Formats: sequence, structure tokens, C-alpha cells
Amino acid sequence: MCVAELHTPGAAFGRRRFVKLGAMTAVTAALASQLGSRAAEATAEGAPLRRITIENIVDLTHVLGPTTPLLYPLLPKFGLVSLASFEKNGLYANQLVVSEHHGTHFDAPIHFAPGGLSTAEIPARTLVAPAVVIDIRDKTARDADAELTMDEVRAWEAQYGRIPEGAAVLLNSGWDRRFNDEDACRNVGPDGLGHYPGFSTEVAAFLRDERSIVGIGTDTMNVDRGVNTKFDVHKTLMAVNRWMLEGVANLGEIPPAGAHLFVGAPKHFSGSGGPARVIAVW
Amino acid sequence: MCVAELHTPGAAFGRRRFVKLGAMTAVTAALASQLGSRAAEATAEGAPLRRITIENIVDLTHVLGPTTPLLYPLLPKFGLVSLASFEKNGLYANQLVVSEHHGTHFDAPIHFAPGGLSTAEIPARTLVAPAVVIDIRDKTARDADAELTMDEVRAWEAQYGRIPEGAAVLLNSGWDRRFNDEDACRNVGPDGLGHYPGFSTEVAAFLRDERSIVGIGTDTMNVDRGVNTKFDVHKTLMAVNRWMLEGVANLGEIPPAGAHLFVGAPKHFSGSGGPARVIAVW
Repeated sequence: MCVAELHTPGAAFGRRRFVKLGAMTAVTAALASQLGSRAAEATAEGAPLRRITIENIVDLTHVLGPTTPLLYPLLPKFGLVSLASFEKNGLYANQLVVSEHHGTHFDAPIHFAPGGLSTAEIPARTLVAPAVVIDIRDKTARDADAELTMDEVRAWEAQYGRIPEGAAVLLNSGWDRRFNDEDACRNVGPDGLGHYPGFSTEVAAFLRDERSIVGIGTDTMNVDRGVNTKFDVHKTLMAVNRWMLEGVANLGEIPPAGAHLFVGAPKHFSGSGGPARVIAVW
Repeated sequence: MCVAELHTPGAAFGRRRFVKLGAMTAVTAALASQLGSRAAEATAEGAPLRRITIENIVDLTHVLGPTTPLLYPLLPKFGLVSLASFEKNGLYANQLVVSEHHGTHFDAPIHFAPGGLSTAEIPARTLVAPAVVIDIRDKTARDADAELTMDEVRAWEAQYGRIPEGAAVLLNSGWDRRFNDEDACRNVGPDGLGHYPGFSTEVAAFLRDERSIVGIGTDTMNVDRGVNTKFDVHKTLMAVNRWMLEGVANLGEIPPAGAHLFVGAPKHFSGSGGPARVIAVW
């Protein structure tokens, strides 16, 4: 993409930035035409018209800082470079230096899918989504390598109904309680692999093929399990331009069904992801 | 704040992270007690219980990149440092290097108020807000130094009712159309000052004293006018822990009243602000 197009979203998204939900929009058509791929055509439309209540608001975001755990030891740590101080300038400001995949963060499809959407291209209508929360904490307490299985997805649907159109499916493994301890978060074993829970590839394929979701999320640092070093879940869903959230906090504090997720995803040029403010309301 | 407290939001916000709107919450009480200031006590509570319709979703966020205009020429430009590529690593990832006050961004009160809330401390309930949009584009077309006056605020209230509790007041000056041209955005005159519109100090004081808002926003790079080099609007509202949005896009595409704003504010340690995803729904 030409850098000169950066500030003319009209060039990427068509002139109709006013998006009505529902049928195929000008935005999706423009993206499909721009990318010319099956993946783009399959981009989730987002959820249809809905009426929601805002009575509860829960922040699903960890504070990001110098002690925020990193997925790999060699990734650069969070940093702030001072640009102005009260003493010298009468105001306070910094430059942020941060990995795109640190803390509570968003993964854009281009992270693992060549030609997938970047952070600059994610349609806003996919960032306001019914939240489906599946709790596997009992299982992970016994087995750190536990994965979300189709049985658990079916059980959720049996209790709360079919996963809604345009939903975000969130895995509550209880790992957010480890977020202040990098070693506990990574949980590297004698085999050198991280031992933490994640989605199964089977569930990822089901959500890709059988349900119209916008994305998935988890409270660990990786939607794939630590022992899945091929990143199959990332690849399965990013190939069809679904987004991911990692390092989500407080999933135990929102209902399994009925909440709405607001994903404050980054929107920078050519981004593979970035820190995100994630808030649930219901 | 001790760095070790970073990932234990309970330390800053009390153990009750599950926030019910309405009366004074444990969160506000904890913040007030922590900061021990009038400003903290005055922190807006957020809007009370509401039912909203999500039929339209509009992205109020510019793409952030190397050509995004900066308020001052000496501020560092946006940068991405490659951390992984498809060719070398089979995936794509970067490190973000960005000023906290660049593009569509959030200002935390600590930016101009010593002891004010940082990005890490902004309560999520203030980030879901009824949007009040005041359009002064006719005036700015004739006068780049135009400011939002009390007459215009009163006229908005006469037409749409009192500014709702917990609202965000947004100024549509038409400046988002200049966002792909740094010179036009800054509009520096022979006097060396930027000539662009903003809030008046009188309106800022009215919103501080007479209305329960959570924050304000504008489509220029500065809620203060370019000719107000004392940043009076920032200081007036940050002293009572109200937040600000700058570089907001597409305000002409949402209704003057009735939309809800989701502010994807950054949540990093000690932050004075940062890029934000801002989305309107109604």
C-alpha cells in the first residue's frame, strides 16, 4: 500500500465510511476487491442490529508496563522515552516503545496470514461483538496443556444457544491470575515448551467453517497452546481474516452469554497487532 | 507507584474490579483515597444505566502512520521496527515506536495535571459515554481561530436537551479533512502560531463546574486553539481528571445526540496518553 494513501481511508474503504450493518457493505466489497482473496470475501460481517443494556462495565485489560510478561524472553520489553516533563516543560509526555504482541493485545490476520488484513484495515463493525465466554478453569487446574474441545463448545451452545452471528469467542482458562508472574505465565517445562492452555485446532476449524464469528480471544499470551508450536489456531482463523485477542483479563467477571465486547484495537499502518483496550458491557 | 503493583490492578482499584454503575463505587473511593485530591474526588462517575441500539457503527479513528501529522515539527514520527517477517520467521510482527500524542489519541489527566490519573488509572466506565457532537464547521470555514462558545453549547442543549450525565462532548470543526496534510492541520501563520479551532476556556469551565462529563474531544490535534498557547482547556478539565481525545475522525457522520462512544484508550503504566481506537454506535 502506498504511504500517501494512509490518511485517506476513502481509498482503502470506499467513500462510504458510514457503515450500516446487515447485508454486504461497500466496505467489504472494497476490501474484497482490494485484496482479491477468498479470505477477504470471508471477512465476518459483524453482528446484525441489536439492542443492549449498559448496566455493567468490566475492563478486560491488564495494565501494560515494564513487568508485563512476554511470550518469549528475547522479545523487547515495554519502554517509555520521556518527551516532556513538568519540571522542564510544564507538561508530561512520552514516546511509547512496545512490541505489537505484548500485554492485553490484538492480533491482526496479517500476523500469520500473508495478505491478511492489517491493523489499519480491520473494519470497526467487527470490533463491537457479542461475547461468548467458555470457562475451562476446572480443567486447566488439573492440566496446564488443556485445550478447548468441541464438547465444551457444544455444551455452551446447549446451554446458551447457537454462537451468535458476529460473536467473539473468549476462552477463560484462569491464566489472567498468572499475569503478574512471567514464569508462571509461560510455564516452560523440562521439554523446553510452554505449558499453557489454548483453543484446539478442531474448534478453530469449526468456528471458521460453521459459525460467523469476528474473532477469538484468550487470557493466556497465545490462542494456541504452548505445546502447539505450529500456531495452527492462529493460521486457521487468520486465513479467513478473523482477529485474535491475547492476554485478556477478568473473563471470570462477565457472564458466559449476553455481554457485548468493545475491542479498542490499534489502527496503525501495516500493523500485525498492538496493545488494545478491551471492555465488556451488558 | 511501585512497578511491582503494575499487574495487580486490585492494588490501585480495590479488589472490586466488577463495577456497577450508579452510586459512588469502590473504584472511585479507592482512587480518591489513593490520590487524596479534590481532582480525584471529582472524577466523573460515567453515565447511569442505559439501553442502546447498535444499528450503526462508525469508526472515528484515523489510520496512524509515518505521514500522520504531528502537533509540533520536532516531535518524533511514527515508526515500526521489524521483529519478525514471513521470509525469515514464517510470521509478521513489529515493535511500535510512537509518541503518546499522535494521530487519533487519548490524553490522560496527568498530561497537564500533576497527580492526575495516568492511562493505567482511567476507569473503564468513563470510556463508554453518550456522545454530544457540536458542529461549528460553518464558523471555522470563515475563521480558523474560531472557538466553541457558550452560545453554541446552549443552542445544542436547547435542541437536544441537557448534556447527559457521563457524556463526552465532541467538537466537529471539520479539521479531520485536513488530516492528510500536516501544514493545513497546523496552519501556522506569519505570527508563528498555529491557527486552528478549539474549545473556549469558558466552555471548559462550564463543563467542569456545571455538567457531569467524562471527557471532551476534537478533530484537530489539540482541544485548545492554536492561539491558546497556555493550554487552558487542557488544564481546566485535567485538574478534575477529565480525559481528552484529539485527532478524532468522521464526526460529521454521527448524529449530534443519541450515539454512544467507545473509547479504546491505552492502559500503559504511567502514560500521559496514547493512540486510541474510537468507535461510535447508535
